[in-house]
Amino acid sequence: MTTAPTPLPRVLSGMRPTGALHLGHYHGALKNWLRLQDSHDCFFFVADWHALTTARPQDRAQLERHVYDMVIDWLAAGIDPERTTLFIQSRMPEHAELFTLLAMSTPLSWLERIPSFKDLAEKSPESASYGMLGYPLLQAADILIYKAGAVPVGEDQAAHVEVTREVARRFNHLYGQGQALLPEPQTLLTDTARIAGLDGRKMSKSHGNAIAMRESPESTAEKIRTMPTDPQRARRGDPGEPQRCPVWPLHELYSDAATLDWAAQGCRAAGIGCLDCKQPLIESVQRQQAQWRERADQYLANPKQVHWIVEVGTERARAVARKTLREVRAAMGLAY
Amino acid sequence: MTTAPTPLPRVLSGMRPTGALHLGHYHGALKNWLRLQDSHDCFFFVADWHALTTARPQDRAQLERHVYDMVIDWLAAGIDPERTTLFIQSRMPEHAELFTLLAMSTPLSWLERIPSFKDLAEKSPESASYGMLGYPLLQAADILIYKAGAVPVGEDQAAHVEVTREVARRFNHLYGQGQALLPEPQTLLTDTARIAGLDGRKMSKSHGNAIAMRESPESTAEKIRTMPTDPQRARRGDPGEPQRCPVWPLHELYSDAATLDWAAQGCRAAGIGCLDCKQPLIESVQRQQAQWRERADQYLANPKQVHWIVEVGTERARAVARKTLREVRAAMGLAY
Ligand code: SF4
Ligand code: SF4
Repeated sequence: MTTAPTPLPRVLSGMRPTGALHLGHYHGALKNWLRLQDSHDCFFFVADWHALTTARPQDRAQLERHVYDMVIDWLAAGIDPERTTLFIQSRMPEHAELFTLLAMSTPLSWLERIPSFKDLAEKSPESASYGMLGYPLLQAADILIYKAGAVPVGEDQAAHVEVTREVARRFNHLYGQGQALLPEPQTLLTDTARIAGLDGRKMSKSHGNAIAMRESPESTAEKIRTMPTDPQRARRGDPGEPQRCPVWPLHELYSDAATLDWAAQGCRAAGIGCLDCKQPLIESVQRQQAQWRERADQYLANPKQVHWIVEVGTERARAVARKTLREVRAAMGLAY
Repeated sequence: MTTAPTPLPRVLSGMRPTGALHLGHYHGALKNWLRLQDSHDCFFFVADWHALTTARPQDRAQLERHVYDMVIDWLAAGIDPERTTLFIQSRMPEHAELFTLLAMSTPLSWLERIPSFKDLAEKSPESASYGMLGYPLLQAADILIYKAGAVPVGEDQAAHVEVTREVARRFNHLYGQGQALLPEPQTLLTDTARIAGLDGRKMSKSHGNAIAMRESPESTAEKIRTMPTDPQRARRGDPGEPQRCPVWPLHELYSDAATLDWAAQGCRAAGIGCLDCKQPLIESVQRQQAQWRERADQYLANPKQVHWIVEVGTERARAVARKTLREVRAAMGLAY
């Protein structure tokens, strides 16, 4: 006798399409996605509608390219399209429909009090759009339409998931007749390593301090070589302190214990120069990038395959979304 | 040589499903729709999402029945499904998608300053939902997705159409590259005869003072017979004044000049009693109702036909909506 395998718990996560991903995205999110695909039924999506809440209209020509660049980076990192469901938010009118339906029963005050919106509304009330205010509700629709059991979030996003839970609770209370039609998702708090960029600030494309996942070996070497180090180690002969050095967190991510020992001791004793210290790091990053580039090249040689992966994922997601919507519509008494 | 006929200008109008329609709906809206179908490409829809912004959840069991009761009243009144496009809002996720996309570029302040919302937010801030605030934007999506050239509205709705025009203008400015991708609709101000109900207040189901379009002859007669009249004509012998009488506006809608003369003179001279005065009105309303009931009975005998009419209308509307959405998505740079 065989028993059917228990279905894995579903997890949902999205990423805004900002173009080619960098090491900050990899260590802050993708690495976690790679872990999740072993233990969960993963739905990963390109949040291109969310990008519209902040993107400038003049950037629109790049948006589509950014979408596919990002998907290729996901695949390059090792996201497995056989095991995960990859799709594009803007291809799912179902999310918009659930967003619209949930809007009817979601108090305005819940959205107005969310910190990220309050900050924005105070700083530049003129630029606040109806869509920005509704951003957490659209996110709730993204999550609830797949009845995701969990959502991986960094701490700064926990408030949004809390709104999702409140929205689900209220919907169930109003329309569920005792059933949790839209289950409340759990928060999967993940330690999102925020790695510093080349200038010591958070790595971000807009800061111009990022190393792309598919950066060329030469450019990667150059960027790391010119990264600032412990400011108190102005000359080769000055002893340094890794804890003060913006390069150190990268080292900790990329180097083994022996290398870290060697570097820390050499730094504190002024036994090695900063370029010596950076060399094994450079090589380690380049090795990882080479692996990513190799996978990416296969997809780049066959762009139709990437479109096909997204197509299959979108239809798989749509089947789940449609089923939920049918239940929601029926519960609300909408004709069908 | 023959020339193709010029397409009729498109007009869009929706009605909330509140169940069986009454004479107030007929004279306030439907009569106007009947006129429009001769001169316009008419898209008439059941605004069931809009109903959700105010409907109580416990009413949901009735919502679907209300939808079809209303469509049957439209057909009974003479709306011609061959010439008009009849559909149900909640069957069109395309509206929700355009609503979501327009939300991103619509300033919150435009919606917050609309009088109907301001009133509500002041009176009961706790009951204001995100969907209520967005109501005029959802309406804008309803209209713009069909590129309707005109929208028939009563004076109290003119502010909503103005928002639609602003939303379209802003979208065209941001994404249109010089083209009016979403044309601004014109306002077709219609004289929406607000007929008084049985108690002199506006006729409305919630006031319990309405005569249904398909009210039985007996009930109609009873309701009109017991309608209050000129308060100064307490007794048969007191002379009255039609301008003070809640029955008079109905008389003016239903009676010919000769009957009106007879009634006005008889009232002012106390020559006739109020029941005498009401009798020709009762008969006139009953004649119109008989015609409506006859048409309605044909549809009621064949409910599949009504579903089919809505099905065809919905697919016809969807083809137009999808085309607009393709253009909008492309202009915004969304992948497809
Ligand atoms: S030796 Fe290494 S850890 Fe020390 S300051 Fe230079 S780069 Fe930083
Ligand atoms: S006679 Fe007719 S118009 Fe005059 S008060 Fe009676 S019902 Fe009204």
